[in-house]
Amino acid sequence: MSTTDIKHYMQSVGREARAASRLMARAETAHKNKALIAMADAIRRDEQKLLAANAKDLDAAKAKGLEAAMIDRLTLSQKGIANMAEGLLQIAALADPIGEITGLSYRPSGIQVGKMRVPLGVIGIIYEARPNVTADAAGLCLKAGNAAILRGGSEAIHSNQAIATCVREGLATAGLPETAVQVIETTDRAAVGELVTMQEFVDVIVPRGGKGLIERISNEARVPVIKHLDGVCHVYIDDQADFDKAIKIADNAKTQRYGTCNTMETLLVHRGIAEKVLPALGKIYLDKGVELRGDDASRAIIASMNPATEEDWSTEYLAPILSIRIVDGLDQAIDHINRYGSQHTDAIVTENYTRARRFLREVDSSSVMVNTTTRFADGFEYGLGAEIGISTDKIHARGPVGLEGLTSQKFVVLGDGQVRQ
Amino acid sequence: MSTTDIKHYMQSVGREARAASRLMARAETAHKNKALIAMADAIRRDEQKLLAANAKDLDAAKAKGLEAAMIDRLTLSQKGIANMAEGLLQIAALADPIGEITGLSYRPSGIQVGKMRVPLGVIGIIYEARPNVTADAAGLCLKAGNAAILRGGSEAIHSNQAIATCVREGLATAGLPETAVQVIETTDRAAVGELVTMQEFVDVIVPRGGKGLIERISNEARVPVIKHLDGVCHVYIDDQADFDKAIKIADNAKTQRYGTCNTMETLLVHRGIAEKVLPALGKIYLDKGVELRGDDASRAIIASMNPATEEDWSTEYLAPILSIRIVDGLDQAIDHINRYGSQHTDAIVTENYTRARRFLREVDSSSVMVNTTTRFADGFEYGLGAEIGISTDKIHARGPVGLEGLTSQKFVVLGDGQVRQ
Repeated sequence: MSTTDIKHYMQSVGREARAASRLMARAETAHKNKALIAMADAIRRDEQKLLAANAKDLDAAKAKGLEAAMIDRLTLSQKGIANMAEGLLQIAALADPIGEITGLSYRPSGIQVGKMRVPLGVIGIIYEARPNVTADAAGLCLKAGNAAILRGGSEAIHSNQAIATCVREGLATAGLPETAVQVIETTDRAAVGELVTMQEFVDVIVPRGGKGLIERISNEARVPVIKHLDGVCHVYIDDQADFDKAIKIADNAKTQRYGTCNTMETLLVHRGIAEKVLPALGKIYLDKGVELRGDDASRAIIASMNPATEEDWSTEYLAPILSIRIVDGLDQAIDHINRYGSQHTDAIVTENYTRARRFLREVDSSSVMVNTTTRFADGFEYGLGAEIGISTDKIHARGPVGLEGLTSQKFVVLGDGQVRQ
Repeated sequence: MSTTDIKHYMQSVGREARAASRLMARAETAHKNKALIAMADAIRRDEQKLLAANAKDLDAAKAKGLEAAMIDRLTLSQKGIANMAEGLLQIAALADPIGEITGLSYRPSGIQVGKMRVPLGVIGIIYEARPNVTADAAGLCLKAGNAAILRGGSEAIHSNQAIATCVREGLATAGLPETAVQVIETTDRAAVGELVTMQEFVDVIVPRGGKGLIERISNEARVPVIKHLDGVCHVYIDDQADFDKAIKIADNAKTQRYGTCNTMETLLVHRGIAEKVLPALGKIYLDKGVELRGDDASRAIIASMNPATEEDWSTEYLAPILSIRIVDGLDQAIDHINRYGSQHTDAIVTENYTRARRFLREVDSSSVMVNTTTRFADGFEYGLGAEIGISTDKIHARGPVGLEGLTSQKFVVLGDGQVRQ
């Protein structure tokens, strides 16, 4: 398609989405759930078709010489397909957030004022290789009463279109507009440029992918973006920490999974407890093959550690690497986190009441924790149900973004003929 | 100042604001209230100084030949000064939103998850002539634990600086950083361009002023903007409306004040009740000097009406002008509002339960009302306390934006050593 054609195509997608969003906003809960269940059924039934479409993408990816991690993310297994269907059924089981009225209270004028939860409208999702995002994002947007425009990675185009067919079938089965979920058919980058600037048709953009993708989109966008940049997460072990909890948490936060955004990247240890906890932790990490990088003080305790550079403190490794720093106390720990962290998820291990309270209040991150692991920071663990992403922004949504993050609230005012004097 | 100097100046203002915001985030409620009260005291004490500074601005404005409405907005009276001080005392009396923890509940893993209300950080306010915004905005930002950067209109520079002196004195009295509220000292437009693009130092921009200002800022901004564009508000009189309520509400929504954003600009009347209500309403409006513009059907009932053009339906008159249209029923009324309205405030007058419910759910505006006047849409009437503006956006804040709109929520997680399996 030429640039002009892409503009026309995207404008038409946007117009359809806006029209569909009006119908979705008033769709009944039962119809939305019926669509989700029908989508799940279609995905299970079409397992072979989805695998075949995915094989096409995988062949092309291998021919292009894409790296192994990318091919891994691109691959749809039978289990992955079953999980997609299961995810849609879980979304169907969540309470419908739309229409909920809260805080309806009488004012001195006699009017009654409250808030009603409403959809955002049209949500644009831009993502990279993982085809399962097509089903997850469609399901979440639909349940929250929105229309969605999905733009997956070009390398997943056949998989995404095959999933989109199941999604459309589900919408049609429930009598909902098929245009409520549209998957962009062109792999041209210009389509993204259009999507993120169509202010009249798109209410919010959610990019999911690497930092590069997200920065590019944030810079181009004229539509609000709910974004997640780095996850440089910390655990701070206070000198009043319980020893067993400290070891268990610092181990789990780093080694339970290395590649997730809520994995600890820097361990901060109070000087007064360093000699006690670091040898034990050092052994655990080194046994598991974690490379350690430390400041001078921690290297004096664990010999086989590389020196940490200034850059290490703000690096999201997403790998078996951990930086360690010894601090003088709570103030220095909080300063370190607010300076080098990415406002994602940070935890303190302490038995001290006042320090726990101060950490919760003063660390400026989307999740702040006491005596537990940063790995808990996700939508399922928080009870939000599925998540569309984790926001490191402060506006609109912070932390794991589930159904509620895809909604807004309007004021409702009930009167009996009152007027303003 | 040269463009380079302005860039340096603004960067330095931004850096100071970011540093101050960290201190403000953990400021105690008592200290914030003390600052607000000391500001109010200083403003009352400096009444003569404020009047003298304002006189300078007024002289310059008159010399420049600014229009009367602008001079009216620029003028600080003794009463205006007393109201500014009173406004600050009212903010001091509001509950502190910061630190409030809600929904702290146990998850199956044993962790307890809730949300804590936290400041946004640094808020940039860009406004036009009214100098009282300097005190109002400073007070609201401070109470919500933020640092503020204020950029008033160049025509109010002396008034704003005089008010800023009182604000700084209040902060100092309470031991809070004076840089928590900074008033930009240059009137150069380039300073605004810097302010709305300093992503590292500014978390959100709130523009207050005419549509031109707001559109310009939205287009330039790289920082999120909480904005309020038009107020094209509607009242729909259903054929099952109570006659007396309909007359009272339609009168009040238009004529109680003409220049406010929540004033009705278009009246929609059900065909079945038009012959009954329009003659009575027409008389009221014409007696008060309101110019009426109608569709053919309504002009057949009220003779002295000009024809409404397509443009009228989407015009915010802010003046004694009203457009009137007769519709076939609720569906057409909702379609009209969603098509021509500005998603600000819209009301239905009806005794019909189902239609009232449908109107509340299906009209996509920041305030939707039953049997009361659009004029109630403001922060004080809704019980939010003072408002920093009315948002017609859907992201983050919708409708009147008070203290809560200047905050965010982070997740707090309390554990007892739990880790993820």
